[in-house]
Formats: sequence, structure tokens, C-alpha cells
Amino acid sequence: MTTDPVDLTARLVRCPSVTPEEGGALVLLQEVLEGAGFACTRVDRGEVSNLFARWGARGNQRAFGFNGHTDVVPVGDRDAWSVDPFGAEIKEGFLYGRGATDMKSGVAAFVAAAVDFVTETPPDGAVILAITGDEEGDAVDGTTALLDWMAEQGERMDVCIVGEPTCPETLGDMMKIGRRGSMNAWFTVTGKQGHSAYLDRALNPMPAMARLMDRLSSHVLDEGTDHFDPSTLSVVTIDTGNKATNVIPAQTRATVNIRFNDLHSGAALSDWLRQEAARVDAEFGTKTDLRISISGESFITPPGALSDLVSKAVEAETGRKPELSTTGGTSDARFVKAHCPVVEFGLVGRRMHGVDEHVAVDEIHRLKAIYGRILRDYFA
Amino acid sequence: MTTDPVDLTARLVRCPSVTPEEGGALVLLQEVLEGAGFACTRVDRGEVSNLFARWGARGNQRAFGFNGHTDVVPVGDRDAWSVDPFGAEIKEGFLYGRGATDMKSGVAAFVAAAVDFVTETPPDGAVILAITGDEEGDAVDGTTALLDWMAEQGERMDVCIVGEPTCPETLGDMMKIGRRGSMNAWFTVTGKQGHSAYLDRALNPMPAMARLMDRLSSHVLDEGTDHFDPSTLSVVTIDTGNKATNVIPAQTRATVNIRFNDLHSGAALSDWLRQEAARVDAEFGTKTDLRISISGESFITPPGALSDLVSKAVEAETGRKPELSTTGGTSDARFVKAHCPVVEFGLVGRRMHGVDEHVAVDEIHRLKAIYGRILRDYFA
Repeated sequence: MTTDPVDLTARLVRCPSVTPEEGGALVLLQEVLEGAGFACTRVDRGEVSNLFARWGARGNQRAFGFNGHTDVVPVGDRDAWSVDPFGAEIKEGFLYGRGATDMKSGVAAFVAAAVDFVTETPPDGAVILAITGDEEGDAVDGTTALLDWMAEQGERMDVCIVGEPTCPETLGDMMKIGRRGSMNAWFTVTGKQGHSAYLDRALNPMPAMARLMDRLSSHVLDEGTDHFDPSTLSVVTIDTGNKATNVIPAQTRATVNIRFNDLHSGAALSDWLRQEAARVDAEFGTKTDLRISISGESFITPPGALSDLVSKAVEAETGRKPELSTTGGTSDARFVKAHCPVVEFGLVGRRMHGVDEHVAVDEIHRLKAIYGRILRDYFA
Repeated sequence: MTTDPVDLTARLVRCPSVTPEEGGALVLLQEVLEGAGFACTRVDRGEVSNLFARWGARGNQRAFGFNGHTDVVPVGDRDAWSVDPFGAEIKEGFLYGRGATDMKSGVAAFVAAAVDFVTETPPDGAVILAITGDEEGDAVDGTTALLDWMAEQGERMDVCIVGEPTCPETLGDMMKIGRRGSMNAWFTVTGKQGHSAYLDRALNPMPAMARLMDRLSSHVLDEGTDHFDPSTLSVVTIDTGNKATNVIPAQTRATVNIRFNDLHSGAALSDWLRQEAARVDAEFGTKTDLRISISGESFITPPGALSDLVSKAVEAETGRKPELSTTGGTSDARFVKAHCPVVEFGLVGRRMHGVDEHVAVDEIHRLKAIYGRILRDYFA
């Protein structure tokens, strides 16, 4: 008897696991996995719950890993939903609910595939599932906590697939082999307040801000690399809040987001931003404060054995050869990368985080089939 | 018996004439002026009250004019005042209250000077007082209404003094012979909202805004002229209101204030702003909307007979030769200029619009003396 990934998805959706609530989701998975012979450990840290599960012995044998999360983003405007966000209602071939796409279906698919695989054809090796309850939050005590704990315990994966949605249009059209890095910089330019009729007594911070943001946004960071799109810099907001036309404001603020490829590091880009801020300060006499947060460095698992394995399975099950991409926002793969080669493959990601989030029932079955084929091919 | 300008100031301060309230101020002045033989007419328009007063016959004889206002700005934070804002309390040589400086003392000084002058030495000519109750508001139905009515009635001034505070530090140190023009422009740059990881699907309006504001604020409008400081452009605010670092905003807004001298007109500057907006739109593919409001064109009464007359009187009474300036914000002189040569002279302006607004009692007497001397010299 095989494990139904749609039923498992529905049961997970009914667990209200909005970050950082466990909501019963990990308890449910632990029960299912232990029933199939997985050794499970709850690796909770801070207010976050995580689940580590291993089938097979710990040791020198080959170990294949899956990573995913059971936490979900908030419902948002409840009244805008046409269904119960935690009801897991199935209508006309689609399963509805928060997390239906991102990514309770992905977790259900790899859990179901792993359970069936170890039951039907017990491999000469280990299958490891590292499932977190903190991917949508600040991700400090989630996959990172699992990997820290695994290092302490001598637990190890040789390769890992993150089951996040990766396909832009159709199941099978894209896998991710890396991600650009991402960082934010918050600029505060300070001058001296005054009256716009008496500029000699004031120092307007706005011209320095305009010059700085023009320079940053017109600078070409690079033209892209073999596996990465060009790095981009976006000025996402400038705000001053001065309502009086006859007043020169003392301060203005801006936020810049940078998505960078493997030609850059967060540290080098930070240095560049500080230099540009100092340059306009020297030109205008202003004082610019800069706060920087590096969300993640760029990373890549270059095309090779792991991407070939996944690509072959996807093509066999869907008829599509997935594009090897490094586009999009960041994911927990950035943490896994430090542990072992990692790629990401999952469902179509268009409906993530929205109202009436839903997933095609048929695609959950197909995703389970892909993950099952990957496991069989890996241990063949 | 001479008219006491301090007593008249106090009685005016006790009238709560916050724009557009008449508050009894014009009624009081009409009573005083009619008692001295002035023919008075209330020239009310919209919700605004104004007072026209003429001593002497209407006709071809010489006519000397004064212009001023009895309306005041609101009290603001009442609890921050140490006195009743409408109490006209006198403490240690200072009279306190809203309008004490701006400009009930100025009106009282020229009314007292005019009453005494026509009583003591009736001139061969006319003395005209054009007093408005809407200078601090939007000034649409104030001095403009008086001048419109005068034109209809065949009333005319040959020269005019506006009694606004003009001295930056000490009574007598500055008169104004003109003012720069002032205009505001509100820019809205529109692009297309999107995710900062997928810039090909978005059009960020921020780079266009930064470029536009850099260009505008680094453009040198001129180097100043004989009687004017250089024109200035101030970007007073840029606001976007985007709180998410991973979102490219659809729109951003900026406000620009321009103070311009006699080398420019509001219309020509508007054309330039529109051209610069169109230029960045062509470069970035954005759409920039522009709203412009011209508060006033630049104007000047070139140094000559009128400024000499005032300068001589000021020097005789204070020992100071006033600087002939065109600095500062705008005033009702911009309307009077279309009617006849006009200069502005009054008290020290530092305490205008503030909490515990007050004026030196002694300076009100001296201002009356200066205005009296101007009248005698003019008709001599």
C-alpha cells in the first residue's frame, strides 16, 4: 500500500502552523515517519520547532537528504478567502489552503516518496529528512539549527534536495542550482534644517541623496556569469516626510536592495556602498549613516551529478528538461550549501502567499513520483 | 494730542482676528480713522474683510499709501504661551500677543502716524490706507480685492509702503525694495510595481526620480543680479512609503521649491521643469506627472525716489542707513507692485509666528516716528 501525498498534504494544511507555531504539523510527520521505520528527533531551538528524521544507519554509507518547511505565512485578509484557509478543501481538482503550494505539498510529496521507497526497496544507505518550522520567519532557528545539531551528532547528507516551489509556469520547467546573494542597505543623509528662502543657513540633504541614489542605481555591477543573471541594485524607497514647502529638511532616508551573483561578496559590496556615501558627503558636506544587512551570499552547486540526477527524473516523469536556474529570492538552500551539494526542485510557485492559495491535486502525485524516481536512481 | 501707537497696538491685539476672522480689528480702525476725517469703506470679498480709508479728495493730487494686515496666524500650542495670546500684556518694556510683531504694531504705527499727520499738518494731497484681513491666509480676497475695488472706483496711490516687519536684527537695518518670485512643483514619477528579485517584470521609478532631482538641484539658475541674490531651487521632500525591501514601488513623489529673481518667470521655469521631467521619462520609460503652483513672480521697485525717501527717514530716526534688500519670502507687496511703486519697511521680524510673540514698546513709537517723517517729507 502506497502513501497518499494528497491526503498527507490535506492533513498538514489543517495544522495551523503559521510561523513560529508548530501547529501539529511536525507531530503528524513524526508519527507517519516513525511508522515507516524512520528514527526521529525534534530539534527545537528558541520558539521554533524542527524535525530530523533518518531511515537507515548513521555512518559511512551514502545518505540522501530532503529539506523543507511546514510553517506558513499568515492568512492575510481572511474575508478575502473563499474557503477556510486551514480547511484543505478539494474543489475541481485543486486543494485549497494556506501552505497548499508553499510548501506543505512539497513536504508531503517527499515524505510519501521516502516512506514508500524505504518500504518497497530498502536502500543500501540512509534517507534523511530535515524539516523546519521556521523558513518564512527570520530563519535563524530553523534549518540552521538542524544543520548545527547534525554537525554535533555526526549526522551527514551527501546530497540534498530542497522541495520549495521552483517552476514558473509548468511542473518540470525549472530547477534551482543556486541563488544570487541578497543584501539591504539603509541610508540616512543628514544636513541642517532651515527655511527655503534662506538657504545659506541650511544644508539640504536632498541633493546628496539624489546624487547618491542616481550613482548607485546607474552603476552596472556586472553583465552576468555562466550560471547567474547580472547582479541588480534597486533603490526601493526614499522617504523624507517634509510637508512644508518652505522648510529644508534635516534628514532623508533611502533603502537599497542588492541581488548579487558569484562575482561579488556582501563585504565587498558593503565597502563600495560606504565609499559612495563618503564621496557624496565630501561633495555636499552632508553626513550619511549606513546600516547594512546581508541576507545571504550567492551560492551555486555547479551543474553535475546532482543536477543530472534530478533533471533526468523530471524529464522521465514530465517530458520536460528543467532549466537550471539561479533566479528568484533566497531560500534555505543557502544554509544547506555549506553542508553538501544542494539543488531545489518543487511545484509551480505562482500561487504562493496569496489569497485562496491552492495546488493541483494531480501535481502533488507527479511530484511524489519525481522524488521517488530520484531516490531509486540515486541508490541504484 | 497725539495718537498713541502702543495703545492702538494693544487694542488691536485684543481683537482675535485669526485669518479669516475680522475679530473687531477693522471695526476699531475704521472708528479711529473716521474720527480723524478719513473716508472709510469696507471692501469685503468672500469670507474676508478689508478696509479702505482715504484722507483728502480723490483726484489728480498726490496720494501716499500704506498697506498692511490685521489678520494673524493661529496661536498654535496655547499651553506653551506664558501669557494670554490676545491679552496684550505689557511686561518690562515689551507688549505680548499674537500679531504683536506681525503686524498689528506696524498697522497701529502707520495709522497713528497718518492720523497725527493729517490733523497737525493737513497736506495738499491724499493719504490712503489699504488694510486687509487676509494676508496670512491664501491672500486671494485680501489686498488683491482692495486693489481691484480701487481700480473700479478710480482710487489711486502714487507710492505705497507695506508695513511688514523687514529688519533682521535692529530697527532700521533693512528695507525691502522687491522680492524674489516663489513657486512649488510636485512631481509624481510612475513606473510598474514588482518584486526586487525579478526586475524584468517591473519598472522602478526611483532611478528616474534620483536622476531628475540630481539634475534639478545641481543646475545653476543664475549668479544673481544687481538687486537680487541668485535664484535657488530646493528639493524639499522625496517620499515613496515603500516598507518592503523586496518590492519595487510603482510610484514616488517629490516637491521642489524655487525662489527666483528677475532673470526668470514662473512660466519659463515651469517649461524647464516639464522638459527635464520629459527627459528622464524618455531615458527611463517612466511617466512623470507635474503640478505647479506659482506663488508670486519676482518684482522690484528699483532704487530711486521712494527708497531714498524711506531711507532718509529711517536714518534720521535711527541713525542707520537701511540695506535695500530683496531677500525673504513673499508679501502683499507683490500685488501692490502692479498698482504703483512700493517698498516695505517695518519692525524687527524675528519673533513672527512664534509662541509668546512680543514687540518692544519703544520700537512701536520709533516706527510711528519714521512713518510720520516719511509723510512730512513726501508732501513737503
